[in-house]
Amino acid sequence: MARSWWGWGNVEDAVRGAELEALLTRVRALMPGELTDHEPPVISSLDLPGPRVTPPASLADLCSGEPEDRAAHAHGKSFRDVVRNLHGDLRHVPDLVARPAEERDVIDLLDWCTHEGVAVVPYGGGSSVVGGVEPRCDGHPAVVTVDLGRMNRVLEIDRTSRAARIQAGTLGPHLEGQLRPYGLTLRHFPQSFEFSTLGGWLATRAGGHYATLYTHIDDLVESMRVVTAAGVSASLRLPGSGAGPSPDRLFLGSEGSLGIITEAWMRLQERPRWRAGVSVRFGDYTAAVAATRAIAQSGLNPANCRLLDASEALINVGVNAGGLLVLAFESADHPVRPGLERAVELCRDHGGEPVVGTAEAPGRDSDGASAGASAADTWRSSFLRMPYQRDALARHSMIVETFETACTWDRFEVLHRTVTEAARQAIHEVAGTGVVTCRFTHVYPDGPAPYFGVYAPGRWGSTVAQWDHIKDAVSEAIHTCGGTITHHHAVGRDHRPWYDRQRPGPFAAALTAAKTALDPAGVLNPGVLLPAP
Amino acid sequence: MARSWWGWGNVEDAVRGAELEALLTRVRALMPGELTDHEPPVISSLDLPGPRVTPPASLADLCSGEPEDRAAHAHGKSFRDVVRNLHGDLRHVPDLVARPAEERDVIDLLDWCTHEGVAVVPYGGGSSVVGGVEPRCDGHPAVVTVDLGRMNRVLEIDRTSRAARIQAGTLGPHLEGQLRPYGLTLRHFPQSFEFSTLGGWLATRAGGHYATLYTHIDDLVESMRVVTAAGVSASLRLPGSGAGPSPDRLFLGSEGSLGIITEAWMRLQERPRWRAGVSVRFGDYTAAVAATRAIAQSGLNPANCRLLDASEALINVGVNAGGLLVLAFESADHPVRPGLERAVELCRDHGGEPVVGTAEAPGRDSDGASAGASAADTWRSSFLRMPYQRDALARHSMIVETFETACTWDRFEVLHRTVTEAARQAIHEVAGTGVVTCRFTHVYPDGPAPYFGVYAPGRWGSTVAQWDHIKDAVSEAIHTCGGTITHHHAVGRDHRPWYDRQRPGPFAAALTAAKTALDPAGVLNPGVLLPAP
Repeated sequence: MARSWWGWGNVEDAVRGAELEALLTRVRALMPGELTDHEPPVISSLDLPGPRVTPPASLADLCSGEPEDRAAHAHGKSFRDVVRNLHGDLRHVPDLVARPAEERDVIDLLDWCTHEGVAVVPYGGGSSVVGGVEPRCDGHPAVVTVDLGRMNRVLEIDRTSRAARIQAGTLGPHLEGQLRPYGLTLRHFPQSFEFSTLGGWLATRAGGHYATLYTHIDDLVESMRVVTAAGVSASLRLPGSGAGPSPDRLFLGSEGSLGIITEAWMRLQERPRWRAGVSVRFGDYTAAVAATRAIAQSGLNPANCRLLDASEALINVGVNAGGLLVLAFESADHPVRPGLERAVELCRDHGGEPVVGTAEAPGRDSDGASAGASAADTWRSSFLRMPYQRDALARHSMIVETFETACTWDRFEVLHRTVTEAARQAIHEVAGTGVVTCRFTHVYPDGPAPYFGVYAPGRWGSTVAQWDHIKDAVSEAIHTCGGTITHHHAVGRDHRPWYDRQRPGPFAAALTAAKTALDPAGVLNPGVLLPAP
Repeated sequence: MARSWWGWGNVEDAVRGAELEALLTRVRALMPGELTDHEPPVISSLDLPGPRVTPPASLADLCSGEPEDRAAHAHGKSFRDVVRNLHGDLRHVPDLVARPAEERDVIDLLDWCTHEGVAVVPYGGGSSVVGGVEPRCDGHPAVVTVDLGRMNRVLEIDRTSRAARIQAGTLGPHLEGQLRPYGLTLRHFPQSFEFSTLGGWLATRAGGHYATLYTHIDDLVESMRVVTAAGVSASLRLPGSGAGPSPDRLFLGSEGSLGIITEAWMRLQERPRWRAGVSVRFGDYTAAVAATRAIAQSGLNPANCRLLDASEALINVGVNAGGLLVLAFESADHPVRPGLERAVELCRDHGGEPVVGTAEAPGRDSDGASAGASAADTWRSSFLRMPYQRDALARHSMIVETFETACTWDRFEVLHRTVTEAARQAIHEVAGTGVVTCRFTHVYPDGPAPYFGVYAPGRWGSTVAQWDHIKDAVSEAIHTCGGTITHHHAVGRDHRPWYDRQRPGPFAAALTAAKTALDPAGVLNPGVLLPAP
């Protein structure tokens, strides 16, 4: 498998042939558009300027100035990243890509960059969709991307406490592969799982696939090691502590602006043995939201509780409904059918009806939906193909992007209406027509995390500007309705204008002071999270 | 009811008469000791020096220089606080006690103190057991204790999201009393519940009564307002967010050193309708620990999972056992018997046997142990009387104190043995004989939070020094064994030497920088959490 330099994932997994035809046919049925394919440029044609900095001899072996490396580290994987790659628009390219093999290398690299005033961009899997790994100089003479990919091992496993010490550069599948022989799992499955790393999850406060309880990476951390200019910050391995503000919580979500995470002790779980799932159809979205809220507040804590609105259900699952709730329960210890049955009861109270059979089987490593292809199965395969489909459509001048938020339940109805309307209006302005979808990725007792999708026909050469217009409108609507500008995608550069307004002023002052203490030269990911000095 | 100025809680609830006789009889059976009662001094005999500062006219109405107010705010409620009060040793007394009625008053008070360089000690219920509210000047000309007790209202309730906006000075019972008409509860019940406030819980990262899941105050916060010298920090009301490091998590556990918390939106729950409980006896403590770990890792998430060691079971419940596990489940939505049954099964796998009947009744507002007085009931009433008994014994020259920690399961056996042995050795050195007990207050999938009790006969006039010797020994043992110096009592002044060693150096630098940004005059609770400048 070869990683795509310009788009999502592996070159071999790109959408092509019959899958591509089917995709384009579906799109044509929904909206007009030219749908001409545009090939990505070859890297040699990009004519990248040479590196502006030379590493010292002691670090030279860790550093690459090859055009392929530099081009592949120029952007994350948002729609605007992919489209800029397709246009060969690589105006910010790292001068060097450094690949430390151990923590000592990270310390030496940061020391050198701090001394030279060279900007440093910590890089895990590079799957940022918010401009978080874009190597901007922002006043510095050069920029080095520090790719942690060689630090990819599970170093220690504590079976008694169910925890493991894991290097930050470990990609999801490799991480799970090293835990599987022990019957353990981190059970953290963001959509980016294959192409993102533990360190990236920690730095961005990643949200896992599961809807409730232990799904956010924040809650799975026992301790962390972070390399800063003020030394290595090493917290104690603890199941819980009340000794002052949590050290880990300062670095969680710091997006490489305070230090470089090198490893962490992470809480593990046994692999689930019992699973049960069902999809519930509602005629009416408001009733579906009320049922979902009842389940979120019930203490049943489903593993999956993904409410699709009518557009999402139709486009991604092919089900006609006012709302479709994909429910699943899992346990490594006990049967989960009683929980599922109670959840279905709550759905029925709100007019919901199960659309596929429910099954539960000890030892079965599937979600138990046995009869035919369930809506949940259909949805999941669609889910994993989404980023590849996004790339294929981006090549065909489509505008395809997502954005997400979280709000309290009392605000959701207005937020959903206002944001959807703002998206439609902005789409109308820049593209004439298009589709807006919404699903919940996570639910909490006090509110949901809605995740929106936008699909519209763009004009080749303008789709980034068209998307930026839509993003401005929806971000403004989210902010006005009291939602967070990001629930699990992090802030990066793209969300900065709204994050700056959302973040309490005194906290901004405290965070800036903390950064100055830990990164006095201001070289760490300048412009991300905080303004470049 | 009148609050005791020198000891725990209400004057009327002090241990006296038959209860006192029974208590002393039990103590005499366990250890030697003189057990002469020593009356607390009357405040007028203390001869407090006059206030060293005069408030401006605009704030005069909020401030009291009365000896009764000042004496009652001189100490928290640790054993060493109570004993120092009994000896009339009030060397640190606030010059003034200020009682703001609204946030504007807090801002004005902090402005004035910042301008004058007067130290400010934020004060909730005053139940700190770590020296967190002791009003030291630490280089400042005077010190003002800001008692939030007048800011005690639930301001807003959002039934849809199950949340409420609550003022920081609200005491536990008054808080629950305002929620009860709505069928809602914060469900946060620290042992100090009656005499501690929401703001105090937030500032100290309080742990609730429940053993798992939503019990720590940290996890119950939607948003907070904190008055700082750099302005009011107001976070957005959100069920979850990934927008940078959490602003709230910086203030949670900040112990008044960064700002004064004035209010918070808190997550609520419906009042439980189903309850089931049982106590399980084990012949062997190691097996009991293994069973408790299995339950903690099962995903059953009991409301109570309190493992008492042999001494704790004997002294506080009167049960002879190698270990006694007090288990309970609760839900507002569904029956909890299946969870309890599975937990009992896990206990039986490790040789445990239930000692009282299990009952479950919808609508019953008790823990369901119906037949006779269950071990859980006995333990709970004993639990609520403990601080009062501590005071009675302190008056009789006893050394009676607790300390707590948390560690991963792999380290617990060594930690338990080492800490118990260190405590026994230190007790032997200062008091000849005594008792050390241990129970779990909370359990996590990756480790327990053990809570130790120490009972020893002291010498009147020396019990503070005797306790300090014991505390040094056990704190050193906890640190050596990789436990946290505090799991839910906060750091204050008493834990500072070990906290300073536990806290990562770069995080200390970041926290110090944050404090300087938010409290440039260094007036906020100087010496707590961070060294006084």
